[in-house]
Amino acid sequence: MNPDVAFAVWSRERAQRIESVLDARLAPATATPAQLHEAMRYAVLGGGKRVRALLAYAGGQLTGADTGVVDCAAAAVELIHAYSLVHDDLPCMDDDILRRGKPTCHVAFGEATALLAGDALQSLAFELLAEVAPRHPAAQCLLLARASGSRGMAGGQAIDLASVGAALDLQQLETMHRLKTGALIHAAVRLGVNCGRALTDVENAAVERYASAVGLAFQVVDDVLDVEGSATTLGKTAGKDAAQGKPTYVSLLGLAAAKERVEDLRAKAQAALSGFGPGARRLAEIADWIALRSH
Amino acid sequence: MNPDVAFAVWSRERAQRIESVLDARLAPATATPAQLHEAMRYAVLGGGKRVRALLAYAGGQLTGADTGVVDCAAAAVELIHAYSLVHDDLPCMDDDILRRGKPTCHVAFGEATALLAGDALQSLAFELLAEVAPRHPAAQCLLLARASGSRGMAGGQAIDLASVGAALDLQQLETMHRLKTGALIHAAVRLGVNCGRALTDVENAAVERYASAVGLAFQVVDDVLDVEGSATTLGKTAGKDAAQGKPTYVSLLGLAAAKERVEDLRAKAQAALSGFGPGARRLAEIADWIALRSH
Repeated sequence: MNPDVAFAVWSRERAQRIESVLDARLAPATATPAQLHEAMRYAVLGGGKRVRALLAYAGGQLTGADTGVVDCAAAAVELIHAYSLVHDDLPCMDDDILRRGKPTCHVAFGEATALLAGDALQSLAFELLAEVAPRHPAAQCLLLARASGSRGMAGGQAIDLASVGAALDLQQLETMHRLKTGALIHAAVRLGVNCGRALTDVENAAVERYASAVGLAFQVVDDVLDVEGSATTLGKTAGKDAAQGKPTYVSLLGLAAAKERVEDLRAKAQAALSGFGPGARRLAEIADWIALRSH
Repeated sequence: MNPDVAFAVWSRERAQRIESVLDARLAPATATPAQLHEAMRYAVLGGGKRVRALLAYAGGQLTGADTGVVDCAAAAVELIHAYSLVHDDLPCMDDDILRRGKPTCHVAFGEATALLAGDALQSLAFELLAEVAPRHPAAQCLLLARASGSRGMAGGQAIDLASVGAALDLQQLETMHRLKTGALIHAAVRLGVNCGRALTDVENAAVERYASAVGLAFQVVDDVLDVEGSATTLGKTAGKDAAQGKPTYVSLLGLAAAKERVEDLRAKAQAALSGFGPGARRLAEIADWIALRSH
């Protein structure tokens, strides 16, 4: 693809690409057990902003990786994200009935099937990385496993659960989000970056700063949108966090300061990329897009 | 350890060994998020027959692997097994309150924490294989991922769910169990075998026959015990399958024929090992133990 195309064109093309990759890697809805495979496809395909896949592709661009090499990294991280949403939406967790404008997986397929679909999506993520990751498959599996587990995403969700009605301070809130959302966003960037040339220590540290800032910005924007957005533009129930008494950046900082924090994180992300050449372009554009998105 | 010690001594020593390995690899119960880590440890430690770990160690013995090399394979497969039990016991699945004589994980920690603990245990299994598996880490991750996913264990559970009240024939029941229980038992043997010398095609085929027979025997025995056992010796609710109208080997074949099937599978497993030397001893002993166990 022409490297100069606008971000909107690039991101649309990449979102379509990851959709095809996922479609090809998920078992057909007719394969036994059909209901499970249908639920897995329902949970993964046809929706979402594919932020994590885009970050993986943009990370790959930074290190000159072949797009085909990045495919399985991008797909694996989207599978982990999709599984986490399915389990998050279950009645015993957030009890959400709407996701991406559609009934949530357990509403459509029943709780037991949704639970198993989430479980099998996690397995599939590792299957993909271990099977087709052409570069460092074991290291990539390790990175994704750590980002997903009890000291990453699942750990963040556990802290989130425990925080309902609790008086978290800003530091505790940030720790929670760095795990709950940040760890996987971070992994997305790293998995993509690792598909290309090796980076120097200085470059690696810059990538860490970028990923860390973007991961947190994503969550702060989410909190802002939970207050400002509507169910129509979000495709999910708005105002839910406040209604559940969950601490958010907006509840702790106020709306204006939360927005300032987003701008500050966006600037940090851009600054981290300053030492890279034009290869960093898509990462820079994603940072802007995340900070400025309205849904 | 003296290679001539009795099976009871060997298996007790190995069960203690895997307990230590798991204890060392699970995060301490005090690490944040403490409740999640406590639930993970509760679900994994202090119980179970460790059949899968024993099969991995015995498989390693067949190919002359160092026991230390087999440790992470044995631990990974036990982690997958433990996660599956936690999710299986949830109210939306089997709704069980007793496991290994203790309250199930969600009874002890709540449903949401149990769900996340299961999720994080699956991640940890891959983390372990990818991080410390000294031989073929990516291939080992791939093997475990396939055995765990929608065409393995999770798929078998989905078929099991769909089978409540349904009239499965023997072939369908066998397909279900080959996935639900057999896939992971099979993976346990293979993960262990892969830690040592490479096998010839003929030897590999024999290992497949062994693993397949033992995996199925395990399930048929389970069905027999569900009828004959008591909650005290089983450490879980007996008679549950029959009460739920689930098809079992006993309901399809009758008790006497189900026991004959076990004996037939035991003989098949032993026959598969006939071409191996004394390295196959522990695998042979496990096949007998599985077929003859009373709980």
